[in-house]
Amino acid sequence: MPGSPDSTAESAEQLVDSRRGKLHPAVARVREAVRAALRELPADTTVLVACSGGADSLALAAAIAFEAPKLRLRAGAVIVDHGLQADSAHAAAIAADQCRSLGLDPVEVRAVEVGSEGGPEGAARAARYDALRAAADQFGADVVLLAHTRDDQAETVLLGLARGSGARSLAGMAPVAGLLRRPLLEVPRASTAAACIASGLRPWHDPHNDDPQYRRVRVRHEVLPVLEEALGPGVTEALARTAGLLRADADALDALAADLAETAVRRTDDEVLCDIGMLEAEPEAIRTRALRQAALEAGCHATDLTAGHVAAIDAFVTGWRGQRWIDLPQGVRAMRRGGFIHLKPRVTG
Amino acid sequence: MPGSPDSTAESAEQLVDSRRGKLHPAVARVREAVRAALRELPADTTVLVACSGGADSLALAAAIAFEAPKLRLRAGAVIVDHGLQADSAHAAAIAADQCRSLGLDPVEVRAVEVGSEGGPEGAARAARYDALRAAADQFGADVVLLAHTRDDQAETVLLGLARGSGARSLAGMAPVAGLLRRPLLEVPRASTAAACIASGLRPWHDPHNDDPQYRRVRVRHEVLPVLEEALGPGVTEALARTAGLLRADADALDALAADLAETAVRRTDDEVLCDIGMLEAEPEAIRTRALRQAALEAGCHATDLTAGHVAAIDAFVTGWRGQRWIDLPQGVRAMRRGGFIHLKPRVTG
Repeated sequence: MPGSPDSTAESAEQLVDSRRGKLHPAVARVREAVRAALRELPADTTVLVACSGGADSLALAAAIAFEAPKLRLRAGAVIVDHGLQADSAHAAAIAADQCRSLGLDPVEVRAVEVGSEGGPEGAARAARYDALRAAADQFGADVVLLAHTRDDQAETVLLGLARGSGARSLAGMAPVAGLLRRPLLEVPRASTAAACIASGLRPWHDPHNDDPQYRRVRVRHEVLPVLEEALGPGVTEALARTAGLLRADADALDALAADLAETAVRRTDDEVLCDIGMLEAEPEAIRTRALRQAALEAGCHATDLTAGHVAAIDAFVTGWRGQRWIDLPQGVRAMRRGGFIHLKPRVTG
Repeated sequence: MPGSPDSTAESAEQLVDSRRGKLHPAVARVREAVRAALRELPADTTVLVACSGGADSLALAAAIAFEAPKLRLRAGAVIVDHGLQADSAHAAAIAADQCRSLGLDPVEVRAVEVGSEGGPEGAARAARYDALRAAADQFGADVVLLAHTRDDQAETVLLGLARGSGARSLAGMAPVAGLLRRPLLEVPRASTAAACIASGLRPWHDPHNDDPQYRRVRVRHEVLPVLEEALGPGVTEALARTAGLLRADADALDALAADLAETAVRRTDDEVLCDIGMLEAEPEAIRTRALRQAALEAGCHATDLTAGHVAAIDAFVTGWRGQRWIDLPQGVRAMRRGGFIHLKPRVTG
């Protein structure tokens, strides 16, 4: 059953109130973020929080347990046991107990098998998201809450810098993506930790969070402190804000490029044609996105098609000096002829 | 006189050729970048290179001295003496001699007085750019070349991260801005250093380049190495590429926002009005830029108006819950009434 007015979360709250005389600001901040993210949901929506037992997701679980009755939502929890440590089942059981004692219902542990595709972080993430979707299906949940904080968002932006493929790679994690919502993207990690302490919750410390084999861990413990030292303490916040702004930019430009491709790019039986007259009137940011779209349609894979490839295609439009052709990933070849760029997939067989 | 076919630069070149059997790749890379940046200039244009005597600008000076006759340009040099070190006049005189021996003509040293406004880096930059513009005037130059490299561009992106104000703050330095051109923005600093060695040029080492009181120096010597260690050696290149992509994004979105403001924002005698119906149909990235424009028109200063302020104005459009008003920098007040956002400057006197 969803948290009722006399749930454990509320009792813990009263404890804090009586001890400190007022609501701890970190608890208030996490709750406020949850309210803001879930305010628009219709009554009786079922919301599941993905809880690892760590400080971020435990603070989130406590906040949703407290807010759900006021928002007239049902709130449960899913704990994904990745099986990557000897005691992972035990840690998952403890997290589940904490979620139950917060008044969340249902609370479910799902054990997953982590493959190897996409590296250790990618494989764990893929397995986790599959399990979350399956749990949402099972319980008829429309929303799964993830506890990524402002610090996680800043780290994601820095990890994206290494790709150098523009706004989208710096846009961080989406606040809303299908089933998933991330209400804490503007809440610092320090607040979730403080909220746990203030509420008497005992978070689990994932040893992976200190393992420097993970690039994210190196960014957290090595890059961000040096960046703050050099540029000032506001860097984490600035990075997270950057993510939101660049996400909005990328959304707008992708939509405009899709409109442009609608008229300027067309597919024939054996190639994709881009109308140079229509493209050259458009600004670079929109034109190159439409050309990228065309190259993907012709068979290039998104992961192989670089900004350099797209710039070379664009040179047929804005830097025309009689180039012959260029070769793109997956054997696609681009050339300019008769007012069009022709993108031809490799002929097989 | 501009470099003639038998200029010193060409002789130095022949020396390299005979010693190594072929053109050093770093020399070739710098020259190629100069050719690409100046190819479109009409014949007889006068180009001045801003030369500090450091490796970047000395390599650039050598490249423009070599390429100018082929491009039919006149090429000279300006050396700005900032007077910040005891021996700065001497260093400037050596740089000027090197430029003359490369065949550049005219070569002019300009002493400037560096103020204090905008911090040490900002004040030196302002004084330098004033001197460059004055020199361009004096010699009828249409173009001033600056030797910023790909590494400088990457550092600028990282410095911009701390601002967190979106694409424009990550767009780095412009390849072309009025008189100024930066042909080496895609050339690594390692190439300019190698080009100097290969050409027998002796660059001056500016002690400011190692002074950790400058944020740029800390970014160069502390942040970038750690970032490369954590994310891989391609980070500098990725950052520079990011700058170019985000510059194109910001240009496109600023232009679209200006179009929107043209119809949706209007000025009356005592306030600026934003038409909510027109704004709410637009994507966030364009709408918020138009709102920012409106707030600037109402009297907010660009340096004080944050992304947070603009988001608060935007909440009158997309998050309307009966907010009363918000106060913006320079005493501007924003409120929603009758289908419009009203931006009222503070009434003075």
